[in-house]
Amino acid sequence: MRKLPRTEMTFSPPVMEARRWLDGVTHPADRPLINVSQAAPVDAPPQPMLEAMAQIVLTDPSAHLYGPVLGLPDLRAEVAARWSRDYAGTVTPAQVAITSGCNQAFAAAISTLCAEGDEVILPVPYYFNHAMWLDMAGAVTVPLQAGAGLIPSAADAEALITERTRAIVLVSPNNPGGVEYPAATLSAFRDLCRSRGIALIVDETYRDFDARSGVVHDLFTDPDWDDTLIQLYSFSKAYRLTGHRVGAITASQARLAEVEKFLDTVAICPNQLGQRAALWGMRNLDQWLAGERDEILDRRAAIIDHFPQLAEKGWKILGCGAYFAYLQHPFDIASDDLAQRLVAGAGILCLPGTMFRPASDPAGPRELRIAFANIDRAGVAELFGRLAAYTP
Amino acid sequence: MRKLPRTEMTFSPPVMEARRWLDGVTHPADRPLINVSQAAPVDAPPQPMLEAMAQIVLTDPSAHLYGPVLGLPDLRAEVAARWSRDYAGTVTPAQVAITSGCNQAFAAAISTLCAEGDEVILPVPYYFNHAMWLDMAGAVTVPLQAGAGLIPSAADAEALITERTRAIVLVSPNNPGGVEYPAATLSAFRDLCRSRGIALIVDETYRDFDARSGVVHDLFTDPDWDDTLIQLYSFSKAYRLTGHRVGAITASQARLAEVEKFLDTVAICPNQLGQRAALWGMRNLDQWLAGERDEILDRRAAIIDHFPQLAEKGWKILGCGAYFAYLQHPFDIASDDLAQRLVAGAGILCLPGTMFRPASDPAGPRELRIAFANIDRAGVAELFGRLAAYTP
Repeated sequence: MRKLPRTEMTFSPPVMEARRWLDGVTHPADRPLINVSQAAPVDAPPQPMLEAMAQIVLTDPSAHLYGPVLGLPDLRAEVAARWSRDYAGTVTPAQVAITSGCNQAFAAAISTLCAEGDEVILPVPYYFNHAMWLDMAGAVTVPLQAGAGLIPSAADAEALITERTRAIVLVSPNNPGGVEYPAATLSAFRDLCRSRGIALIVDETYRDFDARSGVVHDLFTDPDWDDTLIQLYSFSKAYRLTGHRVGAITASQARLAEVEKFLDTVAICPNQLGQRAALWGMRNLDQWLAGERDEILDRRAAIIDHFPQLAEKGWKILGCGAYFAYLQHPFDIASDDLAQRLVAGAGILCLPGTMFRPASDPAGPRELRIAFANIDRAGVAELFGRLAAYTP
Repeated sequence: MRKLPRTEMTFSPPVMEARRWLDGVTHPADRPLINVSQAAPVDAPPQPMLEAMAQIVLTDPSAHLYGPVLGLPDLRAEVAARWSRDYAGTVTPAQVAITSGCNQAFAAAISTLCAEGDEVILPVPYYFNHAMWLDMAGAVTVPLQAGAGLIPSAADAEALITERTRAIVLVSPNNPGGVEYPAATLSAFRDLCRSRGIALIVDETYRDFDARSGVVHDLFTDPDWDDTLIQLYSFSKAYRLTGHRVGAITASQARLAEVEKFLDTVAICPNQLGQRAALWGMRNLDQWLAGERDEILDRRAAIIDHFPQLAEKGWKILGCGAYFAYLQHPFDIASDDLAQRLVAGAGILCLPGTMFRPASDPAGPRELRIAFANIDRAGVAELFGRLAAYTP
């Protein structure tokens, strides 16, 4: 029998599917849509960065031409220096590559690790694009139940490792769960992966909005970190550069030589203006970014402050942090049905738990992800007021 | 035995490898390096476009935010209208998607067609990134000798089709060969593919520099074109946008729904500013582009005019057009060795035929690709003067 082509091995993009739920629905003027479906800034970068970008467009011809596959050398060096400082470890520029967004960093990493039929362990709930790429890469997603508090355990993961396992993937702060993994959790996974000769991929897209101060994990303090660790990052959230597609992958130089093959073939190079904007941001926006973080942390606090009215109605909060609150709803309908009904019924667009778990997982139908980063305190109050008043 | 990870199934990026040949070589002031290795503009886009882009950066917040996975609706519509006009056929906006460059369009197309072990027929010499993606996708590259004049034959291709064949890939005007495929060749391949239920992928990255006037093929005049044809395009060459990564794929709406899964997972969306620049270019730069084409055609004429001095030394010209001259050299050394020696020995960087053919192909060691688009008449004279004077 003919095997299905790669794309037919996976599902349709959840965010685009959710956008289609909006088609044909009109929202009353006094109850506009609250869109908490995607983790994305809704404003342009700050004005000084816009002006710097416009200047680069006009004066730097290299911003319009091909550049190195692994990215702008100055940006690689800046990331290496920043990681060395923030994680109190040693990361060299040759251990950093720039990608066209963090999804591409993940796809590239997996392509250096897996052949057809190899296995990758993903804690559930997972970030759906990770599962989609594994499907399309011909790899097998092995779900690891994150359990109470949505923190996965290395001991549970160990039981899932087989001779085909090539990597474990962690996202911290977590999407969709919002939880920040303790340093000890990350170290335990690192030790497990090293002892079994597999890779540990840590996606830190939301690192800039971690509520903890100081060094949040000690993975990079290990002088041999690059025998096991592959760290992923996105410039999209920190500097509001989602539309410019700039991410990073930090790994051994030997692995990046393999990553180069993948990136050359699917992208040739990351877009040059976006890389220069990211570099400008790293060099000039620390103070501004600290303010952004404060604002996100206040919105997170608003989620907690306003939650009691939902708790009264039987809702539970499973995780809250980074850009996300991950909720358990009290209704006897599946979350994908509920999420679609909330569009017309409450003027809310959010993603159902079924999008973050395999179809067989019984938890998905009870869960909703709220990407709260785009709504302020008043917006959180309004959102929760609508949810508390809603019955399917 | 453990299977190799995907990236280890292919070779390193040729353009990056060739760049490394420059390391440590100094060029005399009176004989600067002539770099004819990459098909890439070396200048920024024209000034009015730069000013339009700077204005967009400053005034259009959506240029910095996520957009639809399949691209900016206005750009999809513009491409559809242009293709309908230029090819005297019918292409709708829903049949066009925008990608992060044309390499990504190819990778996406293959991912909708192939499972592990499926076969794709590539005329040789091939564009190396096509072969690299097929390797990494777990597909088998089936080489089709293009033969005399570098024009492949559908009859030859038919003999290579098996039950695992999923597509034939044509590049016209061709990279690396420079030849423009006759309309009858493309129709014959279309008929063959349709009769065997496989896809015909036609990469028209260099269409804007085709020397022929009028409609160069009738593939889109067929009302059922989208049951077989997948056309690829790049905005990089026409508008000097290589650093912004914008390409397109034109195919059936059903196939684009599959393409959407791939693009969402490796890119999320094409970069927004690049898409707006491409749209501005399509709407405002026709006259300017016509001048660019005239200049490229003059450079192509210069290749022909200056070739006799190389012919005298035993060189042959196998193809010339688009951005490329594809040459056969007279020396008894392999082209990959020759190309490396030319860096220090003649101040020339070009790519050897071994990069455009499988290792087993006996023609590769005799061939060199000259990407002449970046050198004017005087540059062509200088290049050929150096080659004529050179002996390994």
